[in-house]
Amino acid sequence: MSMALLFPGGPVAAAEAALARIAAHDDPALFLARILAEAVRARAAALAAEGPQGRRLYGLPFVVKDNIECAGLPTTAACPDYAYTPSEDAPVVARLLAAGAILLGKVNLDQFATGLNGTRSPYGTPRNPVAPDCIPGGSSSGSATAVAAGIAAFSLGTDTAGSGRVPAMACNIVGLKPSLGLVPTLGVVPACRSLDCVSVFALTVEDACRVLEVIAGPAPGDRYGRAAPAGWRAAPAPQPHWRLAAPLPDQLVFDSPAEAALYEAALARAGGPIQRVDIAPFLAIAQRLYDGAWVTERSAALRGFLTERPGSLHPVTRSILEAGLDKRTIDAWDDFHAAAEARRLARLLFEGVDALILPTAPGLPSLADLAAEPVAANSRLGTYTNFVNICDLSALAVPAGFRPDGRPFGVTLVGPAFAEARLAGLGAALHATAGVGLGAMGGTVPPPPAPPELGPGELPLLAIGAHMAGLPLNPQLLRHGGRFLAEVRTAPLYRLHDLGRRPGLVRVEQGGVAVAGEVWALPAASVGPFLAEIPPPLGFGRVTLEDGTTPLGFLCEAAGATGMPDISATGGWRAYMAVKERA
Amino acid sequence: MSMALLFPGGPVAAAEAALARIAAHDDPALFLARILAEAVRARAAALAAEGPQGRRLYGLPFVVKDNIECAGLPTTAACPDYAYTPSEDAPVVARLLAAGAILLGKVNLDQFATGLNGTRSPYGTPRNPVAPDCIPGGSSSGSATAVAAGIAAFSLGTDTAGSGRVPAMACNIVGLKPSLGLVPTLGVVPACRSLDCVSVFALTVEDACRVLEVIAGPAPGDRYGRAAPAGWRAAPAPQPHWRLAAPLPDQLVFDSPAEAALYEAALARAGGPIQRVDIAPFLAIAQRLYDGAWVTERSAALRGFLTERPGSLHPVTRSILEAGLDKRTIDAWDDFHAAAEARRLARLLFEGVDALILPTAPGLPSLADLAAEPVAANSRLGTYTNFVNICDLSALAVPAGFRPDGRPFGVTLVGPAFAEARLAGLGAALHATAGVGLGAMGGTVPPPPAPPELGPGELPLLAIGAHMAGLPLNPQLLRHGGRFLAEVRTAPLYRLHDLGRRPGLVRVEQGGVAVAGEVWALPAASVGPFLAEIPPPLGFGRVTLEDGTTPLGFLCEAAGATGMPDISATGGWRAYMAVKERA
Repeated sequence: MSMALLFPGGPVAAAEAALARIAAHDDPALFLARILAEAVRARAAALAAEGPQGRRLYGLPFVVKDNIECAGLPTTAACPDYAYTPSEDAPVVARLLAAGAILLGKVNLDQFATGLNGTRSPYGTPRNPVAPDCIPGGSSSGSATAVAAGIAAFSLGTDTAGSGRVPAMACNIVGLKPSLGLVPTLGVVPACRSLDCVSVFALTVEDACRVLEVIAGPAPGDRYGRAAPAGWRAAPAPQPHWRLAAPLPDQLVFDSPAEAALYEAALARAGGPIQRVDIAPFLAIAQRLYDGAWVTERSAALRGFLTERPGSLHPVTRSILEAGLDKRTIDAWDDFHAAAEARRLARLLFEGVDALILPTAPGLPSLADLAAEPVAANSRLGTYTNFVNICDLSALAVPAGFRPDGRPFGVTLVGPAFAEARLAGLGAALHATAGVGLGAMGGTVPPPPAPPELGPGELPLLAIGAHMAGLPLNPQLLRHGGRFLAEVRTAPLYRLHDLGRRPGLVRVEQGGVAVAGEVWALPAASVGPFLAEIPPPLGFGRVTLEDGTTPLGFLCEAAGATGMPDISATGGWRAYMAVKERA
Repeated sequence: MSMALLFPGGPVAAAEAALARIAAHDDPALFLARILAEAVRARAAALAAEGPQGRRLYGLPFVVKDNIECAGLPTTAACPDYAYTPSEDAPVVARLLAAGAILLGKVNLDQFATGLNGTRSPYGTPRNPVAPDCIPGGSSSGSATAVAAGIAAFSLGTDTAGSGRVPAMACNIVGLKPSLGLVPTLGVVPACRSLDCVSVFALTVEDACRVLEVIAGPAPGDRYGRAAPAGWRAAPAPQPHWRLAAPLPDQLVFDSPAEAALYEAALARAGGPIQRVDIAPFLAIAQRLYDGAWVTERSAALRGFLTERPGSLHPVTRSILEAGLDKRTIDAWDDFHAAAEARRLARLLFEGVDALILPTAPGLPSLADLAAEPVAANSRLGTYTNFVNICDLSALAVPAGFRPDGRPFGVTLVGPAFAEARLAGLGAALHATAGVGLGAMGGTVPPPPAPPELGPGELPLLAIGAHMAGLPLNPQLLRHGGRFLAEVRTAPLYRLHDLGRRPGLVRVEQGGVAVAGEVWALPAASVGPFLAEIPPPLGFGRVTLEDGTTPLGFLCEAAGATGMPDISATGGWRAYMAVKERA
């Protein structure tokens, strides 16, 4: 994992590296509250003394967007007069600390997470370490720049309208926007409570997924929390044949031909046919996010503050939030019914498509561009992000190259809720071929990860015949959600028979041999439906492998194999088929 | 099924029976539009000529609440000036007709489905055939009285706040309020679009479930539609050990001690321990249904009509709907966030409870009671119904007896979304022991149905050992959602071995015997997790039964049975265990 490459040598070295990079980066607009260097070093030393103990983020430094509570540090949401100091960590922060990560501090944001550009803060604009004359993106500006600058191995942002994706593009890093309700939002200053997501920034897709797996899952009292489907994981799930889609050509807008070319190149790199789909309903619902009921949800979250201390707000933020005060419920229902329709259309779309590949934004404005039209340029940044949460979708932003003048560009993969692993599998492949370095740190994007180990909610299944990769029945296994894990051999306890187009594995008292096969991960819920398609004399039972493990596997009733050719000497079905073909 | 008992002799006889009962019932306030007798007879004759062709509601007469569209009949929603005549049937109506049912006409309701009492209609109040001096309940007043009077074998109502449950109690019949989104609401005049459900009235639980299975399922374009979980069915699922709950004693209000006694008697008839749970959060959210954002959802649905022709509305309905016009979105968000919290608490409750048993209402007002306080008495009727849709729950109202003065009382079983089969299993048992007749038709409530056949999304599994009913491992099967189907015997192809506390079934080439077992229905998604708990040498494969079917079953690797006692002569594990115990 690249986080470990950037922060090698254990917690103490990682902490020193982070502190040194903070000093070298020297951006007064980045941190709104820092953990004292002595405290960072003490935490690192304590971790080093304890050892990893299997903790998944052991010794990795991170920063937190300053609208998420960290015990003992002020939560400002980039509004000094709003500040309060919580006594407990938000569940997401507590989970990261329990996983062994090292908190460096709280970082800057567009005030109240309202904005996509990073300049709407009284604390200044964090410097974009990749393109210093450009905006850092927002609202999670500090979270993205800290990762791009190598200060933090990863960071937490939030994403309601795109705040977890636009800054990722701006900073040439990865931004993972999880499904609504997957990550607890307790202890987060609400923007739109019903749409807010905690998001993850990292240098690579695999890193972001690892962090997401640590912070995902229900928390007591989280009213907008949702249980993920059984077997959900974030880890990238590679698969050869994705069904990919892109918007109709006239629904694609870019700042210049350079972004258009980078986008088309990304589509080409994704491989396979790209279906063109009409995203007009999604672009339409996005308009309602700031014109309709949801801007009032922002106003409602800050109601007391907004009416009592309006002068404490950034002028742009204030004008946005005040627009929500006098809206009428009877109009809001038009928005909600329209949102229900957009969600229906999104469900329909993703029945036939695994991922929609979008520009993360039409392009990245310079600081001067943004200053010239602070509202219009901001709105344009949300063109392809605003609809995602209203439509209950998951999204992953990955770098997609640079314009000739050095401005970064990115694409975002969008899928249905809880499709993080699928998006990550595709995203890791796209990132690896984008020809970019890691944030502002250079280096090489690692190749897409190998198929991961068995996940929770999955069962291992030994295939020993035509269900193995590339053989005729393999699509059946894929259709049931199977993922290739490893090539293996059984313990020498079996005989293999040719039952016609399929082999039969029979355990014997003596004279058994080892048989070659493949272990696949299958969602536990798919085992029954898959088994229902398997004709007798085959069934599923425990098979003992060479290494002593006992995955489920295809077993054959002894009576069904009697009299059928014993092909054990070939060592396995694939070898036997090769011999047969040559014959 | 009782529908067939009440309407025997095929479509022609059923149509004549319905027409005769319409004439005998002679209620001018019941039908708002009738299919001409000649047309009813023609439809029946056509059905008779075609034969049943497997249609599930073949030849059964029904009526439709007049806020659901039927092609060629006016839709009034009990507001004459609102009337329009659709050219197509609502999907629910089309599905009933396709299932062979005979439409009799459109029936009265509380105007715009706003009310729980049945008196808020310019067309008069349908007569309660069970207690003529009492209200018929509403808003689905005509739908309930037509079923209670034996005119219709079943009917469609709608239920947003309780309109599918309160009239069921008032008329001594069954009211099934399905999960949100399970039944399409396309072609229904909206009350609260986000909460509206089409509901079913019938004389028995089994009848209601049969109708629900016909009308359930996604319809194209239904933005509030939701896919039911794989394997969902409505058919009653009997189970011996339900986890039941009732409100805390001080949260129970009744019109008189008689209702309290009937309620306590119902709890006693439910059997087993009843957990007392705090329903305060649900009672609190119910208050918001008519005070908060959702009353505006009603206003929004009729916005044009309400502002242009307010004089066309029933005065009570008008005052309710006009109250929604000027509400502010910033307040609505308080309601939505409170609803999210209530849904969370409901999910939590139903993790530990299978069904909550509530009074359907505190009691049934007489017509005079209702006239004396038309708003307060109506509100009181919704005490235990209003929160159900906001909390995304399913509900089933069943009769629970009569007060000494003849007023009917009922209880409602509430469960999580998509728990219809569970509620029906319990509800059928409660109904059968309530000591009531069917609606106003007398007769005997049939005993709870036997365990149903295999449902979609389920797989049959042969148990031949300790997983059979009442044996030590049976709870494991129940935990995975297993339902008992039948006692069976295998084809004479097997030998049975005693592997210790479990038997092993091995198919043999010759000398096989038939072995006794039980077929259970198991959700397909549970087969894998269940199999993962089964140790070798056992596995799952196809077993051939006496009748030639091949369910999944426990198979034993031959090598695992070698040398273990052959107990085939006993005929099966249960007989073998009996012999062992005697020994």
